[in-house]
Amino acid sequence: MTPTDPLVLRRDDDAVARLTLNAPASRNSLSLAMLDALKAELAALAAEPKVRAVILDGEGPAFCAGHDLKEIQAHRNDPDRGRAFYEALLDRCAQVMLAINALPQPVIAVVEGIATAAGCQLVAACDLAVAGEAARFCTPGVNLGLFCSTPGVALARNLSPKPAMEMLLLGEMVDAPTALRFGLINRIAPPGQALETAQALAAQLAGRSAYSLSLGKRTYYAQAGLPLADAYREAGKAMADNMLAADAAEGIDAFLSKRPAVWDNP
Amino acid sequence: MTPTDPLVLRRDDDAVARLTLNAPASRNSLSLAMLDALKAELAALAAEPKVRAVILDGEGPAFCAGHDLKEIQAHRNDPDRGRAFYEALLDRCAQVMLAINALPQPVIAVVEGIATAAGCQLVAACDLAVAGEAARFCTPGVNLGLFCSTPGVALARNLSPKPAMEMLLLGEMVDAPTALRFGLINRIAPPGQALETAQALAAQLAGRSAYSLSLGKRTYYAQAGLPLADAYREAGKAMADNMLAADAAEGIDAFLSKRPAVWDNP
Amino acid sequence: MTPTDPLVLRRDDDAVARLTLNAPASRNSLSLAMLDALKAELAALAAEPKVRAVILDGEGPAFCAGHDLKEIQAHRNDPDRGRAFYEALLDRCAQVMLAINALPQPVIAVVEGIATAAGCQLVAACDLAVAGEAARFCTPGVNLGLFCSTPGVALARNLSPKPAMEMLLLGEMVDAPTALRFGLINRIAPPGQALETAQALAAQLAGRSAYSLSLGKRTYYAQAGLPLADAYREAGKAMADNMLAADAAEGIDAFLSKRPAVWDNP
Repeated sequence: MTPTDPLVLRRDDDAVARLTLNAPASRNSLSLAMLDALKAELAALAAEPKVRAVILDGEGPAFCAGHDLKEIQAHRNDPDRGRAFYEALLDRCAQVMLAINALPQPVIAVVEGIATAAGCQLVAACDLAVAGEAARFCTPGVNLGLFCSTPGVALARNLSPKPAMEMLLLGEMVDAPTALRFGLINRIAPPGQALETAQALAAQLAGRSAYSLSLGKRTYYAQAGLPLADAYREAGKAMADNMLAADAAEGIDAFLSKRPAVWDNP
Repeated sequence: MTPTDPLVLRRDDDAVARLTLNAPASRNSLSLAMLDALKAELAALAAEPKVRAVILDGEGPAFCAGHDLKEIQAHRNDPDRGRAFYEALLDRCAQVMLAINALPQPVIAVVEGIATAAGCQLVAACDLAVAGEAARFCTPGVNLGLFCSTPGVALARNLSPKPAMEMLLLGEMVDAPTALRFGLINRIAPPGQALETAQALAAQLAGRSAYSLSLGKRTYYAQAGLPLADAYREAGKAMADNMLAADAAEGIDAFLSKRPAVWDNP
Repeated sequence: MTPTDPLVLRRDDDAVARLTLNAPASRNSLSLAMLDALKAELAALAAEPKVRAVILDGEGPAFCAGHDLKEIQAHRNDPDRGRAFYEALLDRCAQVMLAINALPQPVIAVVEGIATAAGCQLVAACDLAVAGEAARFCTPGVNLGLFCSTPGVALARNLSPKPAMEMLLLGEMVDAPTALRFGLINRIAPPGQALETAQALAAQLAGRSAYSLSLGKRTYYAQAGLPLADAYREAGKAMADNMLAADAAEGIDAFLSKRPAVWDNP
């Protein structure tokens, strides 16, 4: 990587944007600069309705090794012993995770190699995740005296408590089949083929109505934490709007007429 | 089906009521009329303490294919382009799901063939679900430009987010073993034997104290969303009441005396 | 057991405390006296920072058979038919479960034989659980007219609704592989080796920074029920504090220097 290489590469293929964490020498660690770059890319995507699905992968053998430990140690020499930097780093990290959640487009993580600490959190924060057979997941902070509390936020929303606490308390590597059983990933691809698998899923998503995808994603996360009756009220409103929309009129008509739908995607 | 055939059949076997969606020509679709019929049956059951367990299945090869797409399309010609009808349909659908949740008796879904869209939601809304080996589950709205947002409410309460989003975003058929892994169903029966399996479970439930079943079901759903200490307070009250009740006195005495319990069921 | 044998044995091995339910004649039932003893031991451990991990097992072939049914029946002869006693029993039981949750140290349940009713709840309430291959789990109250509503609190936080309702409504024995699939336990050990397996995990935990373990456990449970953005705020604060702490400075430095960390544990 030369100084001018971007920390996050964006490459588009039709309506699918692929973001690649591009700091393989640091195993794509989530330095403050990397988080800034990722946040900027996500902010841009949120304003681009032409993009209908997003893939997130890493350059080199690792997906992402979490925060940059050298950066963290260096800031101990700050006048405030690092407090302002650590707070900024964690705030930025949360903003990235929340931006994935709030993004109108679905986001698919592609994991070959390791996804550890905040890198594992990043996988958990995506809507879908595809892993190569040799992928491994870990929240190893406990081994360093730095419990993975913020990755725990994303784990707690994907894994049930016993597996989540197992990962957080023991800090051991979890292989892809175990990650699948835990609910951290959706699919296991042959080694090296996770990207290809995710691209097929993304292409499938990109062929759908962008309107209904974004409405559906937003509604899912909005209702998931509500009491049951409130959730039905919230989702019912979205569903009625969706029924009234041109995309549903076209989609249902196409289905009933056994012809392909032609949506008015941006 | 002749015009006078009821949309929902009710057949009782002792203390077990079996409700059968009875519109096989439309794959038991949840038209407004079907939802009305189902709501009426559930309201009746709620007032019948003699019924101690409920089975819900479908006539013909499908369990339920969700809302009636032709009905939805027809209402686009309403003066309000369908809004009032869509809101009524979704409101009625939510009422049915909430009525299953609130029903004093446990409800077991029996799925042979497909359970799609609101039909999949119906399975998720039941307390237990038995599927034949060839059963398949799907929330295919995304393929029609009509994201399955209301089915997502029931999925979000049964599946963890990655599998739920996989079903909702990809809209692909999920087989019975996958549905079991996802937490959508409880048991897989040999093809064609899901009903028989469910009937055995229902008979087992019907042999229990109706008082403790209804108290237990209500308490479970009431406490599940509360903070831990509040949940223990809520469940502790129910448990103390249950301990004081004649049915527990009899049940425990019978157990300690190694004799069958004789409950004062209605 | 002679009258002077304690109901809960505590045996320490370095920084690991092992609590053993010690009423094998009653299959370690959670009588009021047993709950009092367990509560007292947990209160003591909460004030002992030298202890860094806790193991909870049972003397004899059973882990724990839940409340003492004979004790429950005897109190029907109280002037208030048992109400005051039942309320006290359930309150004490909730206090024990909440104390495990609030304990600074991680708690590992070790199950050989049966863990039923409140005994199953106890397993679910622990942070981690190891079971012998022949272990079995059950919430059989429904068979006695006494629905396991309070065990349901702990089940609802570990299992998804269909498996939880299956255990609560059917009251059948669940074997160790099923309990693993349900999310009730973390590891299956060869028969009779669950304790040994748990001791290895506990020794691993005891080798970590006690500060980060207790901060991490507290933060995990505090954030798990919050809306996503609030959870990140809560966990972000804990993580920044943890980054500033001497234990993280040492742990990260040791990791980067490829040397073992030396934490200032109490």
